[in-house]
Amino acid sequence: MIPTRSVPEVIERARDLAAPALEAALDRLSPEVRPLARYHFGLDDEHGNPVEGRQGGKGVRPALSVLSAEAAGGAAETGVPGAVAVELVHNFSLIHDDVIDNDKERRHRPTVWAIWGVGRAVIAGDALLALAQQVLLEAGAGDDPMAGARSGAAARCLADATAAMIAGQALDMAFESLPGVGVDSCLSMEAGKTGALLGAAASLGSVLAGAPTETTNALRRFGVELGLAFQAIDDLLGIWGDPGQTGKPSGNDIRQHKKTLPISAALATEGPEAEELAGLLGRDGLTEGEVVRAAQLVELCGGRTRASEEADKRLASALLALESASLVESVRAELVDVARFVVTRQF
Amino acid sequence: MIPTRSVPEVIERARDLAAPALEAALDRLSPEVRPLARYHFGLDDEHGNPVEGRQGGKGVRPALSVLSAEAAGGAAETGVPGAVAVELVHNFSLIHDDVIDNDKERRHRPTVWAIWGVGRAVIAGDALLALAQQVLLEAGAGDDPMAGARSGAAARCLADATAAMIAGQALDMAFESLPGVGVDSCLSMEAGKTGALLGAAASLGSVLAGAPTETTNALRRFGVELGLAFQAIDDLLGIWGDPGQTGKPSGNDIRQHKKTLPISAALATEGPEAEELAGLLGRDGLTEGEVVRAAQLVELCGGRTRASEEADKRLASALLALESASLVESVRAELVDVARFVVTRQF
Repeated sequence: MIPTRSVPEVIERARDLAAPALEAALDRLSPEVRPLARYHFGLDDEHGNPVEGRQGGKGVRPALSVLSAEAAGGAAETGVPGAVAVELVHNFSLIHDDVIDNDKERRHRPTVWAIWGVGRAVIAGDALLALAQQVLLEAGAGDDPMAGARSGAAARCLADATAAMIAGQALDMAFESLPGVGVDSCLSMEAGKTGALLGAAASLGSVLAGAPTETTNALRRFGVELGLAFQAIDDLLGIWGDPGQTGKPSGNDIRQHKKTLPISAALATEGPEAEELAGLLGRDGLTEGEVVRAAQLVELCGGRTRASEEADKRLASALLALESASLVESVRAELVDVARFVVTRQF
Repeated sequence: MIPTRSVPEVIERARDLAAPALEAALDRLSPEVRPLARYHFGLDDEHGNPVEGRQGGKGVRPALSVLSAEAAGGAAETGVPGAVAVELVHNFSLIHDDVIDNDKERRHRPTVWAIWGVGRAVIAGDALLALAQQVLLEAGAGDDPMAGARSGAAARCLADATAAMIAGQALDMAFESLPGVGVDSCLSMEAGKTGALLGAAASLGSVLAGAPTETTNALRRFGVELGLAFQAIDDLLGIWGDPGQTGKPSGNDIRQHKKTLPISAALATEGPEAEELAGLLGRDGLTEGEVVRAAQLVELCGGRTRASEEADKRLASALLALESASLVESVRAELVDVARFVVTRQF
């Protein structure tokens, strides 16, 4: 693995640019939904009091959108509506995922549904998705049909990615009740679940900046491949992650019958370890010892190595897609920084 | 009340035009989601076998979108992406509403979550919302920036209406735990919950046809007012509707602590009947006799008359908005037909 790095300066810069726009967008939510959204984003606690210090995600998606505008020769500000929109869509999916997966904790805090109930969490997620489209489409409001067409194209890019993400989530759920899935099926699910939205994040800014299709396509490929690298790491964290870092119990994916890449790859092997693993994963209510044993078996069957290799391979593909595109050179280097940061999260 | 009328020929015509496009859109859903969507739309049964005869809603929203294109001088086909998109958004909201309200039946059939569980119903609703934006934004795909700008404007109109609808639903939920809400608060909630999407339906076609803002605004006002008339009737049906017609048990809104217009208006009066009503509505698990008594009290307090008058008043406002707009005359007459049909559902 590549050594752990700190948050690149470029992510901080994009965050500083996008954060006020994101807060302004959340202010538009109705009073019944806003507190749930602000809580989920780590801005407020569950009583509506401001939280000290920055919470929430790492800010990779908004950074990609801002950089994507700059990479295509546009101003950083041009990418901000894209940054806000992808962040809203990403968090819509997290809120609904927590309902679907029955997850009671995220980022060391109770999930939205765990506090406000399923109904209100569903509505809050819905509100973020609608808001994402509003923010993006307003970028093209006014009398200039070219600006209108660009924001329409960006909104289409986001809607396509959202649809692919939802299809990936549906597949992920369906996999939980299957004894095993092929590695290809798993990767195809992950391309939808994670790749699509990172692809949108990495290209939205360039679409808003009016870049040629060739450039926006190359940036999207970069994002999709980076998303797959990111997901491979996430799959490793889902089994061997430090709960103190991930905010989720260790071995979580094993308990939830997820067919992530290391698990799918391990189950696809033959021999007594794979059989023992299949036996464990086929049961509910595993003990702590059984979860630890299942994790060992995934490793013994080569699942851990396979996911680690996938992360490296996808990062290489992402960087290759970047090289092929006609981009502002200094920004290309920043995109490489962000990409390397994404695949070096701690275990 | 105006006497009951059959489905106007114009709704049938729009349905024939929009139905294949809607089915084609549903075909794009992933295999994990498609069966739930087709079931919800009444196309298939829960095992995926085609259902004989037409099921689903009355088709008022798609008809409005098609007519709105024609009213602005466009072809009926121009309104079809709008028709499909509003129908998808409407049904997204129904699937999620059934989860939120814990409703086990709709249109005489088990609801999606009652068959497939909450998680899959949430995902299915999400998928319909993303698909709606895709369908609308694809209408402007291609090299013509004017077409791109129009479909972007239409998508914005839909996203705004969706956001307003979700805010209305959130308010509706919040009202359930309040002892009473003012009539104005109730109407404002209903303008969001129902008016906004009908406003979008009635104007989307004209936006896609490139009509001037004055025309699209007048058509939206028509739709919003019609939506409020429609909702007032729906509120009456929610208490006094024939379960054989509505597909929901009689007195359903009373059991669910909904603060609909007749209930809000009744609670806002003074006297022993309003007090008795407030007492009944403040309790869970009412007997059949208590539900019947609560309905009587709503009527005694003038709630039934108030909602009925609201329906008439809103229909008049809707027709006034139509008169003010510059529209193709023959289509204006058809819009009047649809409006009258909307407010004459049977009790």
